[in-house]
Amino acid sequence: MSETETRLQIIPLGGLGEIGKNMMAIRYQDSIIVIDAGLMFPEEELLGIDVVIPDISYLLENKEKVKAILLTHGHEDHVGGLPYVLKELYVPVYGSKLTLGIVQGKLKDNNISTDCLRVVRPRSVVKIGPFEIEFFRVSHSIPDSMGIAVHTPVGILVHTGDIKLDQTPVDGQVVDFTKLAELGEKGVMVMFGDSTNADKPGFTMSEKVVGNTFEDLFGRCTGRIIVTTFASNVHRIQQAISTAQKYDRKVSIVGRSMVNNVGIASELGYMDIPDGILIEMEDINKYAPEKVVIVTTGSQGEPMSALARMATADHRWVGIEKGDTVIISASPIPGNEKLVSKTVDLLFRQGAEVIYEKGMGVHVSGHASQEEQKILLNLIKPKYFVPVHGEYRHLMKHAKLAESLGIPRSRIFVAENGQIIEVGKKKASIAGKVSAGKILVDGLGVGDVGNIVLRDRKQLSQDGIMIVVVTINRELNQVVAGPDIVTRGFVYVRESEELIENAKEKVREALDICMKRRISEWAVIKAQVRDKLGKHLYEKTGRRPMILPIIMEI
Amino acid sequence: MSETETRLQIIPLGGLGEIGKNMMAIRYQDSIIVIDAGLMFPEEELLGIDVVIPDISYLLENKEKVKAILLTHGHEDHVGGLPYVLKELYVPVYGSKLTLGIVQGKLKDNNISTDCLRVVRPRSVVKIGPFEIEFFRVSHSIPDSMGIAVHTPVGILVHTGDIKLDQTPVDGQVVDFTKLAELGEKGVMVMFGDSTNADKPGFTMSEKVVGNTFEDLFGRCTGRIIVTTFASNVHRIQQAISTAQKYDRKVSIVGRSMVNNVGIASELGYMDIPDGILIEMEDINKYAPEKVVIVTTGSQGEPMSALARMATADHRWVGIEKGDTVIISASPIPGNEKLVSKTVDLLFRQGAEVIYEKGMGVHVSGHASQEEQKILLNLIKPKYFVPVHGEYRHLMKHAKLAESLGIPRSRIFVAENGQIIEVGKKKASIAGKVSAGKILVDGLGVGDVGNIVLRDRKQLSQDGIMIVVVTINRELNQVVAGPDIVTRGFVYVRESEELIENAKEKVREALDICMKRRISEWAVIKAQVRDKLGKHLYEKTGRRPMILPIIMEI
Repeated sequence: MSETETRLQIIPLGGLGEIGKNMMAIRYQDSIIVIDAGLMFPEEELLGIDVVIPDISYLLENKEKVKAILLTHGHEDHVGGLPYVLKELYVPVYGSKLTLGIVQGKLKDNNISTDCLRVVRPRSVVKIGPFEIEFFRVSHSIPDSMGIAVHTPVGILVHTGDIKLDQTPVDGQVVDFTKLAELGEKGVMVMFGDSTNADKPGFTMSEKVVGNTFEDLFGRCTGRIIVTTFASNVHRIQQAISTAQKYDRKVSIVGRSMVNNVGIASELGYMDIPDGILIEMEDINKYAPEKVVIVTTGSQGEPMSALARMATADHRWVGIEKGDTVIISASPIPGNEKLVSKTVDLLFRQGAEVIYEKGMGVHVSGHASQEEQKILLNLIKPKYFVPVHGEYRHLMKHAKLAESLGIPRSRIFVAENGQIIEVGKKKASIAGKVSAGKILVDGLGVGDVGNIVLRDRKQLSQDGIMIVVVTINRELNQVVAGPDIVTRGFVYVRESEELIENAKEKVREALDICMKRRISEWAVIKAQVRDKLGKHLYEKTGRRPMILPIIMEI
Repeated sequence: MSETETRLQIIPLGGLGEIGKNMMAIRYQDSIIVIDAGLMFPEEELLGIDVVIPDISYLLENKEKVKAILLTHGHEDHVGGLPYVLKELYVPVYGSKLTLGIVQGKLKDNNISTDCLRVVRPRSVVKIGPFEIEFFRVSHSIPDSMGIAVHTPVGILVHTGDIKLDQTPVDGQVVDFTKLAELGEKGVMVMFGDSTNADKPGFTMSEKVVGNTFEDLFGRCTGRIIVTTFASNVHRIQQAISTAQKYDRKVSIVGRSMVNNVGIASELGYMDIPDGILIEMEDINKYAPEKVVIVTTGSQGEPMSALARMATADHRWVGIEKGDTVIISASPIPGNEKLVSKTVDLLFRQGAEVIYEKGMGVHVSGHASQEEQKILLNLIKPKYFVPVHGEYRHLMKHAKLAESLGIPRSRIFVAENGQIIEVGKKKASIAGKVSAGKILVDGLGVGDVGNIVLRDRKQLSQDGIMIVVVTINRELNQVVAGPDIVTRGFVYVRESEELIENAKEKVREALDICMKRRISEWAVIKAQVRDKLGKHLYEKTGRRPMILPIIMEI
């Protein structure tokens, strides 16, 4: 067997240099396993795009080698890409009970068979080809999260998954320190560590802190209490319910995704919901304000969410009333800051008291801060370290942190999506690249919107479009109808008649010149029109609408 | 004289429920004075809009009554609207030397005479009609900022302007506590207070703190240092220059607006630039890295700024090199978070060390936090309080803060732009409303882009446009050219031939039906086409492009 053949390849396909669409392939000879298959919500400049998924062409090129997908937890950025992936690559999917409970719903919505799902528990060991895979318990902002250790012919790989070291988790399921210590002691070849909070000093606070804040706030509130958080933050919802019970309040869960998640989590035994505490939203008004807690979606200010509709008095069942206290139990995901503050403003305008500030103890992160990251590195003691799950600055900060603990810089890889990390028994190195990147999903189209379409959308969004149509009789070399001008998103036409008339005049001039010169290539005529008209419009309005000349020929 | 005639009216025209376009009118009988004339940068949903200015129709309706505009300081959200206002309403403009220095440049750029400018100093008193106006020194993130006290027939009004209580300002010009105490003692009828940081507990740190951080960082850096901050933050730039001198480094100012501001500020005596310390950016590479500091624009990640161009290796003179330290000496303005972190990532990728984190002491706010706001309220002791300069939640928080200090809720007005606050000698109350709002500026057009244009831009940006053109011979009731289909921003046409062919087929079907039924109103035919085609496209693609049928008639 040649040297190359005995090397392992690790290929991150998403989640490096970005927060979202996490996915990593691990290959040894003819076997590939994949950790996570997430999606990403599009950045602002991806106009009209619904979601972004990883480019899996590498996996499709090696279709018969892919043996399984392993999931760390049930967040969208780890499982949201599955429906797209499984349609092209139907393989067994391993994950915890709750994770697969969430995945099951997604697959059903997409008419994909759930036969592939295989539930595993922490400390489960699964053998797949040359890999022995060991799952271990971690804390995060969704229950039943796991990290993954992969025993391979070249050594042990440890992927932390999304992790925080919560010493007092709500479900009592502390990170499996014993297993991590054991792996560290055996010797870990490569560790992949969650970098999300690598620029946050200190420790991330325990989820229980939020429970204490709820206790404090619920104890003081005399009106209704509305708590909004991520629909997947089952323990947060649990704490709101438990605190409500303590203060003798009923709880109504409002918002489709939250109702869904509470349904799955309680059915699978991840929630403890006291009998009779839940009420339907239609019945909220039957109870006195001081007897009600509403737990709802919309913590990111999403315009169609339940909370946003309450804030605009547009929700069918729940309106905001004077005396209500709204607790925003979440931080804005970067990019959502304005949406969240708009919602907060609207809630204040409706007369609510709103608790949203940082430092109020109404939210804690699900990711390890620097001190926890240090503990993990010191426990796992990897020979090589690859920071994952972070934008570039987070990966860099995590790399520097590892270096400060004594891991030589040469054994830390700040890698890019698609880069191949080749691992032998003694050494690892970066060796080449496979294609990796963003696949844009727009409606039913997966990957059919590219740079040209996006560039056009951008221009259309800025200054709109002016369409110039003219019908020409080719034989007579004569304009028989038009030029007509239609604009959208450019100016308010009713108040711009003169501008439009002048524009027509410019088009006529351009056409006349072409006719006189007997120019007959449409492309040249169109270019003339575009040029003349563009200059004229910029001069008159300071705007550059897309100009689209259309010539009809009879 | 009737009761009404002896009342004063205060009308905020901008800056309430928003951060930006600050403007407030104060009217007594036939005299109106205006405090500030700012602009606002458009929110994301205002596609293609360049800036937003206040609706000044109230002022234009009372044109002959407007006697003067008083400026508190030189930031865009206080002076940026002036060129638009002065074009319609040319009146004297009062402000400090630096403020008017900045305004002067703007007026010249817009071909507006600068004859209206009247420099005043702190403690200057100006008499305008029934008003005696007294300016007083405040600290803020631009030098030469002032608050304004207006002595009126119904009592004293105090407007804090943008203010922080910096006990160790860089220029030694502490807030005029004496004047505030004196006014408070005389009795202030209404106070208008800066609410920007009303949700921040404690005190805002002194600008000097940043100087100390610079000292610390400059002392440790062995490569080039690049500091980015707001171009108007003259004291920040001063501190960078002073620290550079201490560590024997030359300074290059890079970025047009910063070069401008440093020019104005040093010419007017607001900066102390040691001889020979400034170097041209073309000469940076003539010096050893440890001998150079670059101070530059781009602290908000603005894509065309100097720093963003350095980060993408697109700047003509300055490239980022390994060993460079970039100090982001600013906080992202809400909405700019993603742009800033993208720039930070790019800088890291180019090999720089980047200092950007909160809590690193590289930036302090220019606005008072809660404890300072309390001091101001207790010093000024107003009978009535109107929180200004803040989004709705900030105004509410500021109102609650005032209430907690003993001002009765009934004497605190959380007002809206356009609301009239009527003040008599004993009482003030909200009394009616004038028209106020956003005027959108797009290119050369002021106010010509409204909801319809924005709605179209929104739709165009999401799913693009499909244009269907057909030429019909009216007499023959027959299609003589087309249907032709042109799309932009919808699909990549080269890979969608079948989709486009099918779309044409749908259009032909719709036209056939109309022809057969002898429908001759274009509007009906267009509606048919739009309807049939829209449904078809949504079914096939899940997208809803704008559909624009154009019928040419010969």
